[in-house]
Amino acid sequence: MINSIAVVGGTHGNEMSGIQLIQNWESQGTPERFSNLDITLYKANPAAIAANVRFIEEDLNRQFILSNLSAETSSQEHELAKAINEQLGPKGNSSTDLVIDIHNTTSAMGATLIILAVDEFHTQLARYVKHHMPEANILVEDEKPYLDHGYLCTTGKRGVMIEVGSQPQGVLREDVYLLTQTMAEVLLDFCMAYNANELGEYSECEAFRLGENVSFPLNDAGERTAMIHHGLQDADFAPLLPGMPMFRTFDGKDINWQGDKETYPHFINEAAYHKLDVAFATADRVML
Amino acid sequence: MINSIAVVGGTHGNEMSGIQLIQNWESQGTPERFSNLDITLYKANPAAIAANVRFIEEDLNRQFILSNLSAETSSQEHELAKAINEQLGPKGNSSTDLVIDIHNTTSAMGATLIILAVDEFHTQLARYVKHHMPEANILVEDEKPYLDHGYLCTTGKRGVMIEVGSQPQGVLREDVYLLTQTMAEVLLDFCMAYNANELGEYSECEAFRLGENVSFPLNDAGERTAMIHHGLQDADFAPLLPGMPMFRTFDGKDINWQGDKETYPHFINEAAYHKLDVAFATADRVML
Repeated sequence: MINSIAVVGGTHGNEMSGIQLIQNWESQGTPERFSNLDITLYKANPAAIAANVRFIEEDLNRQFILSNLSAETSSQEHELAKAINEQLGPKGNSSTDLVIDIHNTTSAMGATLIILAVDEFHTQLARYVKHHMPEANILVEDEKPYLDHGYLCTTGKRGVMIEVGSQPQGVLREDVYLLTQTMAEVLLDFCMAYNANELGEYSECEAFRLGENVSFPLNDAGERTAMIHHGLQDADFAPLLPGMPMFRTFDGKDINWQGDKETYPHFINEAAYHKLDVAFATADRVML
Repeated sequence: MINSIAVVGGTHGNEMSGIQLIQNWESQGTPERFSNLDITLYKANPAAIAANVRFIEEDLNRQFILSNLSAETSSQEHELAKAINEQLGPKGNSSTDLVIDIHNTTSAMGATLIILAVDEFHTQLARYVKHHMPEANILVEDEKPYLDHGYLCTTGKRGVMIEVGSQPQGVLREDVYLLTQTMAEVLLDFCMAYNANELGEYSECEAFRLGENVSFPLNDAGERTAMIHHGLQDADFAPLLPGMPMFRTFDGKDINWQGDKETYPHFINEAAYHKLDVAFATADRVML
């Protein structure tokens, strides 16, 4: 049974769609049909929200490593993570059955559900979401065990992330907001059906399994020598075939994808990864 | 004659297209055909660029009010403005004939040239730009005298701004970069033709004269009750007619434009105006 559910916005303080959805559900109430669920609405980083920045000192959504949660406090977000872990967790022995953490991105990823494991529960969940929201993308980050991730949502017995784009930081777009709201409601609908043992049989669905980060090309001084190619920009989750352009250098040359097979880029030109010089992440297409 | 020209990027440290253009021209040189011009390339706010933020303490592009430039220093950007004014100005008696300051916006304003006066020079300039770059928009902010503006570009005898979007803060898009580069080169081509007395006769052109800012609707607690309507989002410089929707409330109602005539919204959903709760600016369509 999924009794207790936390729906979280503002883990990053400049990602407006989740913050606004939590605020609206706080003031208007969650939709009536979810009244049987024990839902906690939560704004994770109030200081970052007030300052309209991703974080004050450190990325909150990388703080929830088990060893980190018992370490001496090193930053505002580290302290916050320990407090959130007491409230929603404790991680590994959690009082919350499901944490849904809402994000948005400058990449054109549409409505993406990020799952951190591929077991029966998450396979059912992914198929349900894809059935009821065919435009959704399913992104699988199961390159390490669930508890080894540093994400806030791992404070729950189970945790997933909603990631919608494209939306600039500090901006709320109606299209992104509505996709966010729809995906949050579909996830809660799933919980209702799961608890009532009324889940149907859904056919297998497409998903993308995270590969690795691809960096911008840099010169010896560490400066970028190229930008995302216009053919790749806004093409998240579309196949990038060997030989297709991924970068355009500032002196006008194309740099092509050299993999031995197609990949499915996402988080293309995400603003928050600017400082890391990450251009995009790769993925393989899989069936769940 | 337009002898000395400053081309400036990074007045806002997270507006990447101007920063990248200045960096590329610094390393590759400005295009050969401009070798007769005395061009200074300038990154205005290195600390904000390094931190990848709009500004550290105060908006640099509001600091260049004459009285402010002789006042006691109150912030990092105020101090910076006084230093820039010594280098490019001094404002009102400037050593620089033209300052071109490059910006970008999260609004879908395409390639926009902002001029601060409508005299013979700026009318010639606007017509030239529109002739050689028909996709450009001309925005006129002449609601007060040139020297009364607080913009960095007013350190020059003449000053204009390039404003291109949509591009998220902290992101470089190839389409926005190329529009920025094209408009900067067209402005320098104009200077070449102006100096050689080889300007042709160009027909009058369309421009938009800034009206006023329109705020998001707020409740008594100061929280937003609506978002930009999907019909208005990304529709910068398209006519908004009386009765057309401009906001969608979070309980699903439309709020319509109540003006007595059409207006031309721009800076729609600009991230930097988030804290001010500015939703967009209005404009009248005029011919120059």
